[in-house]
Amino acid sequence: MTTTPLIQPRTLKGFRDYLPEVALPRERMMEQIRHVFRSYGYLPIDTPALEYAEILLGKGGEETDRQMYRFRDHGGRDVALRFDLTVPLARFAAEHMGQLGIPFKRYHIAPVWRGENTQRGRYREFVQCDFDFIGTQALAADAEVVLVIHDLLRALGLQRFTIRINDRHLMGGLLEEWGLLERQTSILRALDKLGRAGPHEVRAELTERVGLSEPLAERILELAATAGAPEHIVPALHKAYAGHPRIVEALDRLGQLCTLVHAAGIAPETVILDLSIARGLDYYTGTVYETYLGDLPGIGSVCSGGRYDNLASLYTRQVLPGVGASLGLDRLLAAMEELGLLERRAAAAPVLIVYFDAARLADYMRLGRQLRQAGIGAEVYPEPRKIGTQLAYADRRGYTLALIAGSDEFVRQAWQIKDLRSGKSHEVRSEDVVAAVRALLATGATT
Amino acid sequence: MTTTPLIQPRTLKGFRDYLPEVALPRERMMEQIRHVFRSYGYLPIDTPALEYAEILLGKGGEETDRQMYRFRDHGGRDVALRFDLTVPLARFAAEHMGQLGIPFKRYHIAPVWRGENTQRGRYREFVQCDFDFIGTQALAADAEVVLVIHDLLRALGLQRFTIRINDRHLMGGLLEEWGLLERQTSILRALDKLGRAGPHEVRAELTERVGLSEPLAERILELAATAGAPEHIVPALHKAYAGHPRIVEALDRLGQLCTLVHAAGIAPETVILDLSIARGLDYYTGTVYETYLGDLPGIGSVCSGGRYDNLASLYTRQVLPGVGASLGLDRLLAAMEELGLLERRAAAAPVLIVYFDAARLADYMRLGRQLRQAGIGAEVYPEPRKIGTQLAYADRRGYTLALIAGSDEFVRQAWQIKDLRSGKSHEVRSEDVVAAVRALLATGATT
Repeated sequence: MTTTPLIQPRTLKGFRDYLPEVALPRERMMEQIRHVFRSYGYLPIDTPALEYAEILLGKGGEETDRQMYRFRDHGGRDVALRFDLTVPLARFAAEHMGQLGIPFKRYHIAPVWRGENTQRGRYREFVQCDFDFIGTQALAADAEVVLVIHDLLRALGLQRFTIRINDRHLMGGLLEEWGLLERQTSILRALDKLGRAGPHEVRAELTERVGLSEPLAERILELAATAGAPEHIVPALHKAYAGHPRIVEALDRLGQLCTLVHAAGIAPETVILDLSIARGLDYYTGTVYETYLGDLPGIGSVCSGGRYDNLASLYTRQVLPGVGASLGLDRLLAAMEELGLLERRAAAAPVLIVYFDAARLADYMRLGRQLRQAGIGAEVYPEPRKIGTQLAYADRRGYTLALIAGSDEFVRQAWQIKDLRSGKSHEVRSEDVVAAVRALLATGATT
Repeated sequence: MTTTPLIQPRTLKGFRDYLPEVALPRERMMEQIRHVFRSYGYLPIDTPALEYAEILLGKGGEETDRQMYRFRDHGGRDVALRFDLTVPLARFAAEHMGQLGIPFKRYHIAPVWRGENTQRGRYREFVQCDFDFIGTQALAADAEVVLVIHDLLRALGLQRFTIRINDRHLMGGLLEEWGLLERQTSILRALDKLGRAGPHEVRAELTERVGLSEPLAERILELAATAGAPEHIVPALHKAYAGHPRIVEALDRLGQLCTLVHAAGIAPETVILDLSIARGLDYYTGTVYETYLGDLPGIGSVCSGGRYDNLASLYTRQVLPGVGASLGLDRLLAAMEELGLLERRAAAAPVLIVYFDAARLADYMRLGRQLRQAGIGAEVYPEPRKIGTQLAYADRRGYTLALIAGSDEFVRQAWQIKDLRSGKSHEVRSEDVVAAVRALLATGATT
């Protein structure tokens, strides 16, 4: 007998499999995220993973274009896998806005692909959770984004985090004052590195590459270092820049935004005004947001976004202002794994029905169905193997209860219920088994 | 002022956008499907959309290879988008089975890509919902697949459907008897076309292409036309083929499977034995399943699968028998759209808070948060526009209730609740608004 050589089972570099112990909590995270989005009236959409390359190219900068998975399809079309959910949203909005109506609030939870160098918590395929409030310039929408970010992290079980906000018009207004409008892009790009590279390196970049004088670079860095409670910083800046209408206006908006957010019940210490927050420069035009975990700030922002004046200008003449943010699910998942916040019990259902008496499979399957119809998940072990083997399986899979009946129990019309948390067993009458299971599951750990 | 030429916003042929009115019920379908899978103890997994081409090639036949989206990535690797979820499962199982343990029950809900010619209800990107019970040859698993298919369709609101089952050993055993084992592949491939092409065309294929005699082709077609209640067909075939052990064994298995399924409470008329069911020949080795909608049989099988002797033989020497099936979500969605079973109300939340008094935004946002914390979704309209505009928006979005308060109500500490189903309004005190909203939502339509 000849054996064909095996193909090595492996995934591509930068891609990963999700085993149940991670896939199950990840799915539950997505459920919680969807629940929060919907609770604010955001509606789901879905778009193709593949788009015409011309739709995606040139929208995220040179680096993004380089990282794009781009190829020719069977019809010779130049196509690419989406690298984010914003560009497809812009295309989608341009195509369907007449049907959708304004304001339009959408969420989109889907994978994106970027052939970038892999590093901690970063993959070449990862799920983003985007939400956008389109068709309004109202500050109510900017404030709502803070509320949604807050509720998302809370729903995922995170308590310690700060939402850092800024307004593009603040630094932009000041650079304009100082006659640096032309160099704004390179200055903001340098400032965007502050968190990772530190002030020393950024100072060098501002003086050597951007060509600023030492005192000017210093002044910009000082300003970028301004961070703290908006109720302190806003009045101070208001005073310092009273004669500068563009700055005053931005400060007023930020102040009102914080008032709204606090009025809605968000703890003041959760929202920080941080003048170093710059974000993807060419796109955002107003409020910008980043979110850092108190226990793992080094992983970077887990939810970022901002306001834009015109979402879909490349595809339509209709002007669509809006504001939104994106939660990086897989980065957050990596953070939660690192913080030990992921419950790694891989139980999809709470009850295992042991297949004990080989002739009684129909009875075991009937009870399984009875439990499921009562809303209680139940697996029937498929083979009449040793009870120890089946209980070890139940334990490994994280089941809460095991139900056992042999010929004695069938004569007595009874079931043994074994609580796998305590190891204790007791017998209940057949007609009481569903109620008894429900009562036991209501005590202690939930599944 | 110059304007850059616009890029035409469009999707690739065979791909589609999901607007909220379809995306929301589609998401809810996936939730119901996940719920059914978990209730049987199936666990989720996820695998990359992109795999090494060598993992995917040659697994689904020549046509599938031709339809594959295949290209070279940035590192020059030969890669492809998955065309189904079974081949990635086989690769996954070979790679991780040591960690997963046996039996292993997994589900996987994810898009797949096939560059095939588009037709009714078929796209080049579509979501499949697969479940497999791996590591056991027990008939309990084959019976469970029927239960799961049944529960899936019921959970999705479908009442009229038949699950058609067969066993590869039946037709296979008979062809062996007749000395046609070598031509089995081409015969079964011809029979697989019965539903679409009809007996006339299949007869021609059997005689002209496969080279069977007219009487033999007739006999095979007669047998393939055997379909009906297993409790009638199984005994009849048992009698006719008593001396043929392979056939008798298969009949016994099918008989036991039906007994189990009926004992678990599935209505007998739901399960039909149908000897024409062939499925993707090279893969399945035992029970096979197809599922047809009573009101739309022409759309084809919406949930199909079968038993296999060895899942991952191309990647590992470990023998992994199993049984499973795949629900075609997007085909079923198309069917439900056609049958008018899709509730097209695009409301993510039940309550719209009208922004009436321009100075009271903080109050509106505070109430929104209060409702959400009580588990009731609520959107705050972002701008103080005309009340008619806001109510028209609420109506278009399918909201159930609108909450309105102007300066009069704020003085009285009250809210107007407008029931958008009946058009009736009434006033409640501020401290009672959450309870009143909850009570109103409990009457009539749920969201």
